Amino acid sequence: MSPIQPPPDRTPLAPDTLHRLAAIVGGKVSTRPADLTVHGQGECYHPSMPPDVVCFPGTTAEVAAVVKLARETGTPIVPFGAGTSLEGHTAAMRGGICIDLGRMNVILDVRPEDMDVTVQAGVTRKQLNSHIRDTGLFFPVDPGADATLGGMAATRASGTNAVRYGTMRENVLALTVVLPDGSIVKTANRARKSSAGYDLTRLFVGSEGTLGVITEVTLRLHGIPEAVTAAVCSFPDAASAVTTAIQVIQSGIPVARVEFVDAVGIVAVNRFAGLDYPETPALFFEFHGSDAGVREQAARTGEIAVENGGSAFAWAAGAEERSRLWQARHDFHYAVMALRPGARIWGTDVCVPISRLVECIGLARSDAAAAPFPVAALGHVGDGNFHMSYVIDPDSAAERRMAEEFSTRLGLHAIALGGTCTGEHGIGYGKVKFMVPEFGEEAVALMRTLKSAIDPAGLFNPGKIIPPA
Amino acid sequence: MSPIQPPPDRTPLAPDTLHRLAAIVGGKVSTRPADLTVHGQGECYHPSMPPDVVCFPGTTAEVAAVVKLARETGTPIVPFGAGTSLEGHTAAMRGGICIDLGRMNVILDVRPEDMDVTVQAGVTRKQLNSHIRDTGLFFPVDPGADATLGGMAATRASGTNAVRYGTMRENVLALTVVLPDGSIVKTANRARKSSAGYDLTRLFVGSEGTLGVITEVTLRLHGIPEAVTAAVCSFPDAASAVTTAIQVIQSGIPVARVEFVDAVGIVAVNRFAGLDYPETPALFFEFHGSDAGVREQAARTGEIAVENGGSAFAWAAGAEERSRLWQARHDFHYAVMALRPGARIWGTDVCVPISRLVECIGLARSDAAAAPFPVAALGHVGDGNFHMSYVIDPDSAAERRMAEEFSTRLGLHAIALGGTCTGEHGIGYGKVKFMVPEFGEEAVALMRTLKSAIDPAGLFNPGKIIPPA
Repeated sequence: MSPIQPPPDRTPLAPDTLHRLAAIVGGKVSTRPADLTVHGQGECYHPSMPPDVVCFPGTTAEVAAVVKLARETGTPIVPFGAGTSLEGHTAAMRGGICIDLGRMNVILDVRPEDMDVTVQAGVTRKQLNSHIRDTGLFFPVDPGADATLGGMAATRASGTNAVRYGTMRENVLALTVVLPDGSIVKTANRARKSSAGYDLTRLFVGSEGTLGVITEVTLRLHGIPEAVTAAVCSFPDAASAVTTAIQVIQSGIPVARVEFVDAVGIVAVNRFAGLDYPETPALFFEFHGSDAGVREQAARTGEIAVENGGSAFAWAAGAEERSRLWQARHDFHYAVMALRPGARIWGTDVCVPISRLVECIGLARSDAAAAPFPVAALGHVGDGNFHMSYVIDPDSAAERRMAEEFSTRLGLHAIALGGTCTGEHGIGYGKVKFMVPEFGEEAVALMRTLKSAIDPAGLFNPGKIIPPA
Repeated sequence: MSPIQPPPDRTPLAPDTLHRLAAIVGGKVSTRPADLTVHGQGECYHPSMPPDVVCFPGTTAEVAAVVKLARETGTPIVPFGAGTSLEGHTAAMRGGICIDLGRMNVILDVRPEDMDVTVQAGVTRKQLNSHIRDTGLFFPVDPGADATLGGMAATRASGTNAVRYGTMRENVLALTVVLPDGSIVKTANRARKSSAGYDLTRLFVGSEGTLGVITEVTLRLHGIPEAVTAAVCSFPDAASAVTTAIQVIQSGIPVARVEFVDAVGIVAVNRFAGLDYPETPALFFEFHGSDAGVREQAARTGEIAVENGGSAFAWAAGAEERSRLWQARHDFHYAVMALRPGARIWGTDVCVPISRLVECIGLARSDAAAAPFPVAALGHVGDGNFHMSYVIDPDSAAERRMAEEFSTRLGLHAIALGGTCTGEHGIGYGKVKFMVPEFGEEAVALMRTLKSAIDPAGLFNPGKIIPPA
């Protein structure tokens, strides 16, 4: 459990706010300290900043009524999905009302013939995929955690197969959003493409609750591939593994997943799950397509790997073996955390143009080589995105400071290489310091203009994304 | 040549504006009537609304200086690329300064290893593709016309192969934009994905010059496929052709192009180019991939076509035959126009969820069946997007009125089916009337909020996209 930190700049709730809030949501509110603590944190090293109250609306209309109450009383609002975010997105930095969308978990309309679906914001990705399994379709974006689809839209999430299927940016067709003035906006229709008007959908994807509350999400679905194969390939060093991934992408092979795990990560995964992968850097691959197509993709990938000193592929043939292989990859976070009892992970999330990836990972690894704590690297390398995991003692201020120094240097380095401080986790308040280095003063000023035009009172998730002027 | 219509709401130029403008762009301005007329129109039925002056800046800094002058003197600004737009985007509805970006045609940086490129806004798509041919890469978005890449970004253009490669929305990585306050913003870095901050790139893609002037564009490139095949397939009626296209998409076949042409269109193309396609509705296909991959795609597509009563494929084997096949398709506009000497095309551009496509095309065709002028249909049917071409006498007010009635009914029908009034042409001023029906009052109000926050004086391409409050 993270430590608790009272919001630094709390606005006390107006006198009868609690009572009026409860009336809107049929009594579904909580001020229990344990509930408040949970709602003020994510799955990260940031301390909890609890809200004053959590409410659990059941409809878009209830959310709109809560927003109007907040506006009238000057109360900050923080939307909350599954609480799996990593940059303090749900911290109530000025207290106020947390809107937990968990009760809005209805799958509203599945349209297999159009390969799209509309869900309430509190539906999780696993819930959706389980619901639509019989349609032959699936929703590909997979950030690891079983996040809500509203939360994933709000943070512009992605994950292991974004290299093939895109991120939330590409897979959200439309949103229903409650704006800070209480109005309800549908951002777009369901056409696959449109040249009509400003792209309101993309304005809210990645806006992290700072411009409104997402209450419904319309998503693209994809056909479950006819054939799927997966394999692990070991490499003598990190550079040859990453170079292989780069060349696979540059060759235009439509790989569905290509994940890098460094030697420390492999050791951790072996120990955690009782596996026996060679303890050197590795790439985890998955191929989707027709039978002939996946054979062809795998063969071409295998040739590139061998040219770079890679081992033969260790194939995961059936669905069960494949799921065991990906379990090892998905266990990475916990496996690495288990390298050191009581530790927490401080994770980075840079993403760079793929030609700069070897250089960027190399710097990250050499910078952290002398760290007194374990450091592992993991990457969605097909996209140029990787995570350094600093396995720190959460009670050690010195280790926290050192992790922060590493991650600051790495973020600035990625930006200097033409990349971003965050490929998929978002800014929250943890990465606000990178905004001006990444975008420049003028672009950040434009973001501030958008924010104050849409949320003039500054009540929506205050303290997130945009640095103070 | 379209008729000329003086801007309905012209603001006279402030006294020394011309002189100061000329000083900024090194004398590269024009007030010749012929230049003004050309710059106030696109390739459509809308009359020209000429600006007061056209300038030809050579750098982003010059554009910023022009914008500052316009702001200071309260002069409207209309950006201009190649003048190929179809909804009156370049009409100077309040007069003012047209910024022609044609001199900014430098390809700034090609990065084959990252599969991206940065160009000045005035570079055209053919210029780019010819420049990068030797890299093994290409830029896929193809609206037919040799538009500038800045203009294509500004209208969120797409075209025949968007079904495989996406539209400008998916293929623009970053933009440099001069904002109405004269500041210069870079919207993003070059990382393939990012969760950092508001999506400024997508805010400007499709903004049609109403929020700023795009001066540089960074684009994704794609590998030239190892193998390409193309074929034409004839069908007994329109519904069976369109149903085939829908089933191909629903089967997940990654077709690169699937274009519908109705019987009137085929007759026109045969006559125009001396061809002998069976004069029934047809689908034009293109497949991209490995040798084995395209064979497999074509075989599966052929099976679906036959099940729907389609003919055997007429293959275009070599590059030359293929280019002849696509020339026929690209000639459609001129071929249909030639059905009636002196005629102009009034084109529609609806896009609907694919399951509603047969219904929507059916309505469009039956609605226009009794028209006194030829009507042909053409569609990027893999995306649910199609164009009705009303071949009207531009001097006949009755025919213009009738075409407008057809297209209004069709636009509203597409919106009622969950679609959009414009899949790829944009709103300009020609489709402003559809904005509230398509988005609702609240979403249009939000667009108005964005517009007035970024362009408080309302000088940027006034009259476009957003209906008056």
